[in-house]
Amino acid sequence: MLCWNEESPQQRKQLLARPAVSVSADVKAVVENIINDVATRGDQALLDMANRFDGRTQPRLLVPSVEIAQSAALLSAELKAAIEQAYQNIRSFHAKQLPQGYSLETQPGVSCELQYQAIEAVGLYVPGGSAPLPSSVLMQGVCAQLSGAEVVLATPVKGNEKINPAILYAAKLCGITKIVEAGGAGAIAAMALGTASVQRVNKVFGPGNSFVTMAKQLLSQSLPGFAIDMPAGPSEVLVIADERANPAFIAADLLSQAEHGTDSQVILLCNSKATIEATERQLELQLATLPRAEIARAALANSSLILVESLEQAFAISAEYGPEHLILQIADAERYVPLVKNAGSVFVGDYTPESAGDYASGTNHVLPTYGYSKTYSSLSLLDFYRTYTIQKISKNGLINLSSAILPLASAEGLDAHANAVKIRLEALNND
Amino acid sequence: MLCWNEESPQQRKQLLARPAVSVSADVKAVVENIINDVATRGDQALLDMANRFDGRTQPRLLVPSVEIAQSAALLSAELKAAIEQAYQNIRSFHAKQLPQGYSLETQPGVSCELQYQAIEAVGLYVPGGSAPLPSSVLMQGVCAQLSGAEVVLATPVKGNEKINPAILYAAKLCGITKIVEAGGAGAIAAMALGTASVQRVNKVFGPGNSFVTMAKQLLSQSLPGFAIDMPAGPSEVLVIADERANPAFIAADLLSQAEHGTDSQVILLCNSKATIEATERQLELQLATLPRAEIARAALANSSLILVESLEQAFAISAEYGPEHLILQIADAERYVPLVKNAGSVFVGDYTPESAGDYASGTNHVLPTYGYSKTYSSLSLLDFYRTYTIQKISKNGLINLSSAILPLASAEGLDAHANAVKIRLEALNND
Repeated sequence: MLCWNEESPQQRKQLLARPAVSVSADVKAVVENIINDVATRGDQALLDMANRFDGRTQPRLLVPSVEIAQSAALLSAELKAAIEQAYQNIRSFHAKQLPQGYSLETQPGVSCELQYQAIEAVGLYVPGGSAPLPSSVLMQGVCAQLSGAEVVLATPVKGNEKINPAILYAAKLCGITKIVEAGGAGAIAAMALGTASVQRVNKVFGPGNSFVTMAKQLLSQSLPGFAIDMPAGPSEVLVIADERANPAFIAADLLSQAEHGTDSQVILLCNSKATIEATERQLELQLATLPRAEIARAALANSSLILVESLEQAFAISAEYGPEHLILQIADAERYVPLVKNAGSVFVGDYTPESAGDYASGTNHVLPTYGYSKTYSSLSLLDFYRTYTIQKISKNGLINLSSAILPLASAEGLDAHANAVKIRLEALNND
Repeated sequence: MLCWNEESPQQRKQLLARPAVSVSADVKAVVENIINDVATRGDQALLDMANRFDGRTQPRLLVPSVEIAQSAALLSAELKAAIEQAYQNIRSFHAKQLPQGYSLETQPGVSCELQYQAIEAVGLYVPGGSAPLPSSVLMQGVCAQLSGAEVVLATPVKGNEKINPAILYAAKLCGITKIVEAGGAGAIAAMALGTASVQRVNKVFGPGNSFVTMAKQLLSQSLPGFAIDMPAGPSEVLVIADERANPAFIAADLLSQAEHGTDSQVILLCNSKATIEATERQLELQLATLPRAEIARAALANSSLILVESLEQAFAISAEYGPEHLILQIADAERYVPLVKNAGSVFVGDYTPESAGDYASGTNHVLPTYGYSKTYSSLSLLDFYRTYTIQKISKNGLINLSSAILPLASAEGLDAHANAVKIRLEALNND
């Protein structure tokens, strides 16, 4: 346990520092080769990589539609219902984000509009790793479905396994028909560049390892018009708890973040020494039965339980840190929500664990990490749209507006800008 | 003149290719040094750079507030009125973009919210170059003002000149009080990192040369939480004109884009050979009197006047190109607006020149270029906000939701995620 007020400014900064993410130069070189390989050899490059990286002896690319259609039959009734319930909640929450343009006559004869256009084609990446991630399909897929974009979903399949039916069923609910069995940087490159089997998309979403992240970065920097969702970093949670909070709940929330990966970061800010000490005991107790205890222990090593003098101090520290997930286990927690700043998603009250939002409450679990919650948004439908503007100016509108355009163009030394107006005014005079 | 239907697919691709933007490795090395210098020496680094790069013998950093307050007195009545008129139009158009959150009970006891938070502090960069750019102040400054962010504006000042009063007056209207006389990569680094005189900001907006662009890129990649507006590329216009369009208007619009820089790109798509030929003659005529003719001629060398078989074909080509500015000089132009895809800003009808939107119609002139209008938005108030989500779950809500969370956590092999729910359900059972 640490006490915030006893730490020096330098130590405080250190406490809130993120674990360094170092990407070796090797990763960049490997990913550049993969991108070039996909650009030149297309499908064959993907098939070779599935063999080499995923140990597929008979790799294939597109999942036949019959497998998607029949996926539900391979699921337990509980899992099928869970996917459906999560889908419904996520869909109803995100449906309220459908954007609407507007138009406005800014001055007589000058009509201006802002309109939304759905991004035409999107790629969704779902990592493989140790387990299938149907929740990742839902969080990205619902948005894509609501926007009406064409969708390609890519996910790796290992060895001689079949693609997991939970992934397929989640995709089916989201109306996704193009599913590619490909992973890593190769999958990202295929969606960004297009191959014979994989449709080229305009924007790629989704989490992934350092190769995936590097591929997203390199392609978004080099391919005109190609975009990615947001910078990716290790996952993190900050819990603010008071003296009456349940230490078992606090420990469970900290561990549910810590089990994500050894680079996860968990922070507890609490105004009670006794509660922190009880949480420390609960952490040991719960770790004892956790299958991913080793990962969680490593993550806890990056993490701190910190005694604060007041809840107000806790909220100020949280705003400085900018956590991806912020959990409030405090009395009358709702009253404190207006104090929240720079959080990705907020979990209010003792009975709102992070895992509710990770899976099923309806909010999106794709959130800014690594301090980016100071500037970046939680994933929303708006990330699948772009805005553009339209103006229509009448002859009289242009006459009215010229008193603003001409002096400004002249002040900026842009004569041709002024000319484009003057030549029209002359035409009107000669009418 | 080229005829689209006579070009091979390869030639068509070439016609729509952007001029390559090559950034030398030198630029990166220079900018890295500048960033390190600002990080270690702060204000003194900025003062030294003002001397070295801008030839300031007595550089200063912050503009005294009295100079901002008295700026109007140094302007001509026309320019003052023009800045005010543009400010009003831009402000009323962007005020309609003030975002609103919502809340929704996705299932009984599960309440979810989406909220908007204004980014706390923003930096606005206004390049110096050959002329002051008050319009750039307005386009960025109005958004910052409406969002309520703390604002730092940076702009270079050359030699022994004073900072231009048009810049100061535009800033004054936008309520900006912190104006820094600094340019280039140093100015960007100062706003991103903070110095004794320059407040640290969360996000930097604004155009600039390759050093500015590189500084924005490097800092947004290395500084956790720091963000930038959008990828920057050379400016461009695509004009779609029909046989009845006025060749003088077409030429004037092409030139108003071409005079921006030698790397600007202008494209005309027209269904009439005669109109294209008349436009070619008008280009020569108008170039003859243009002060920036040399720049415009170089830009025209990257550019093409293309004969199309129909307006529908023109809109399809435009969607493929994704122009920053799209001008429609066609009969009944409004009827064609629904065919527009992937444009940054659209100018509808013979009397709506691009310079109207560049300065004063009310729309924002900060637009995605280089094909990014397929995925990126025109600058709007939303770029000064971020969204985050909140969930509040009641005890019964959690019981209801557990049937979705537990099977999904189990399918994903995340036991601690399930535990965070189970431990709460047990507590409820023991109540």
